[in-house]
Amino acid sequence: MSAAGDPVLGAVEAGGTKFVCVTGRADGTILARERFDTRDPAATIADMCAFFARAVDTGVRLSAIGIAAFGPLELRTDHPAFGHISVTPKPGWSHTDLVGPLSRFGVPVGVDTDVNGAALGEGLWGAARGLGQFVYLTVGTGIGGGVVVAGRTVRGLVHPEIGHVSVPRQDGDSFAGTCPFHGDCFEGMASGPAIAARWGRPAQDLTGDELARAVELEGAYLAAGIRNVVYSLAPQRIIIGGGVRNLPGLFPAIRRNLAQQLNGYPGLVEQSGEDFVVPAGCGDDAGALGALALAAQASRT
Amino acid sequence: MSAAGDPVLGAVEAGGTKFVCVTGRADGTILARERFDTRDPAATIADMCAFFARAVDTGVRLSAIGIAAFGPLELRTDHPAFGHISVTPKPGWSHTDLVGPLSRFGVPVGVDTDVNGAALGEGLWGAARGLGQFVYLTVGTGIGGGVVVAGRTVRGLVHPEIGHVSVPRQDGDSFAGTCPFHGDCFEGMASGPAIAARWGRPAQDLTGDELARAVELEGAYLAAGIRNVVYSLAPQRIIIGGGVRNLPGLFPAIRRNLAQQLNGYPGLVEQSGEDFVVPAGCGDDAGALGALALAAQASRT
Repeated sequence: MSAAGDPVLGAVEAGGTKFVCVTGRADGTILARERFDTRDPAATIADMCAFFARAVDTGVRLSAIGIAAFGPLELRTDHPAFGHISVTPKPGWSHTDLVGPLSRFGVPVGVDTDVNGAALGEGLWGAARGLGQFVYLTVGTGIGGGVVVAGRTVRGLVHPEIGHVSVPRQDGDSFAGTCPFHGDCFEGMASGPAIAARWGRPAQDLTGDELARAVELEGAYLAAGIRNVVYSLAPQRIIIGGGVRNLPGLFPAIRRNLAQQLNGYPGLVEQSGEDFVVPAGCGDDAGALGALALAAQASRT
Repeated sequence: MSAAGDPVLGAVEAGGTKFVCVTGRADGTILARERFDTRDPAATIADMCAFFARAVDTGVRLSAIGIAAFGPLELRTDHPAFGHISVTPKPGWSHTDLVGPLSRFGVPVGVDTDVNGAALGEGLWGAARGLGQFVYLTVGTGIGGGVVVAGRTVRGLVHPEIGHVSVPRQDGDSFAGTCPFHGDCFEGMASGPAIAARWGRPAQDLTGDELARAVELEGAYLAAGIRNVVYSLAPQRIIIGGGVRNLPGLFPAIRRNLAQQLNGYPGLVEQSGEDFVVPAGCGDDAGALGALALAAQASRT
């Protein structure tokens, strides 16, 4: 237990299906947690604010709040829509202001994409501890990537969208891809729904030979996306989260295919080692810990 | 002219065919310049050192030296081969120490890839002034990319190799590609030698319909590489240097194809504007100015 009155961080994992609000400490300890479904913006944001209001009412002294959100997000601090979700297919959520409603608490608010937050969390408490430059990929209902360079998340115009890089079609695969924008991009070929659509059922229902072929193909597509990330960003490590990472034999398949696709260029032994492409270390708390990492960063600035 | 005794920056553009050594100032003024062919490492590096030794002998007070070099380079400061070229197809140059021989001048030495240097130079004096996050691509005998994030060049494991991202094959193009490692990667499909091999003669000798088709195809492949960079890095601008950029009509072809390939995702109006993909601003001095930018950075650390 903490001493009464010590400053506490607030954090929100703002996902498309659930919001998780927590209070915690800069060492990654979670003190309190509440989870609720994502409904319309007004009701959902009211629940989020009520969580922190109750904490303050019971004497918690908040020093910063972090919010790691689904996107696309406007992250340019000089943009009038800073901290808003931009145009999203999620009904009702386009142009929703996530940061403004938190201003009532009078503390710095750190906002970033869910995957940039998760990347920061992996750097502090997970599989990227001690590294300055790495990429976090989540492979589940979609594919998203968070990027850390020199210890900070990459933001520019506006944030990486790694799920939409191109991947060369693998020999013999005629699957059209599921991305509404690009068809056969990384997400379109290798997300959970892409696996389910290609094989006629979800990955966890595959068995035997079919499972083996699905895992090999998934390893090849993940390696193809990772290759583009490696050549663009020179990361020290690739950390993979999301449900698809639990496919048996997936990591050896990724490593084998990646070595084949890099084909010895530029010939770094590190890129073929077992600690180059690794599973996420923050487990089920990855989202909340990512938001907590954003809060910790905001409290220092 | 500068006041006698004012500190001066030294800079080396260390290329595969020529070395250019200069002295200059932090505002991008070049004071003296010498150019010589790249021969074997011993003779070439002796010439490089002699240039700076003569400058010092005539009273120049060096405050830092920057070296922007062909690669691959070892840039990890804690690696025993820091500042060395690693394994290169250029005969005799693998494992050459570029930084060590400059230590005799007793000033900080800043080393980076030629393209990272050129990117920094574009940020200070060229087409990326005022931006914190951008990519410089050179398209000539090869394709290389320099990346600036939060004002600094990206270095990790070890530096970006953007010429080797994958690009989807364009409809009707059966060209195998020229990359010895990957065949039909970005560099293998869109470098100057790739254009020459595909059309049977160098780009500058193409005319009429054939030129128009070559420009459209080159625009499509450059857009495909840029798409992967955009989704990986969220740059504010893409700056293109190298000889291929002079093809007539190339930039409109790139912009048209990029809009088509991004296909409205994530729908940022900036990415379809005329100032998103632009020609380099530093002209023929890009290499030397890039090295000067590295010297300016080293003098501040």
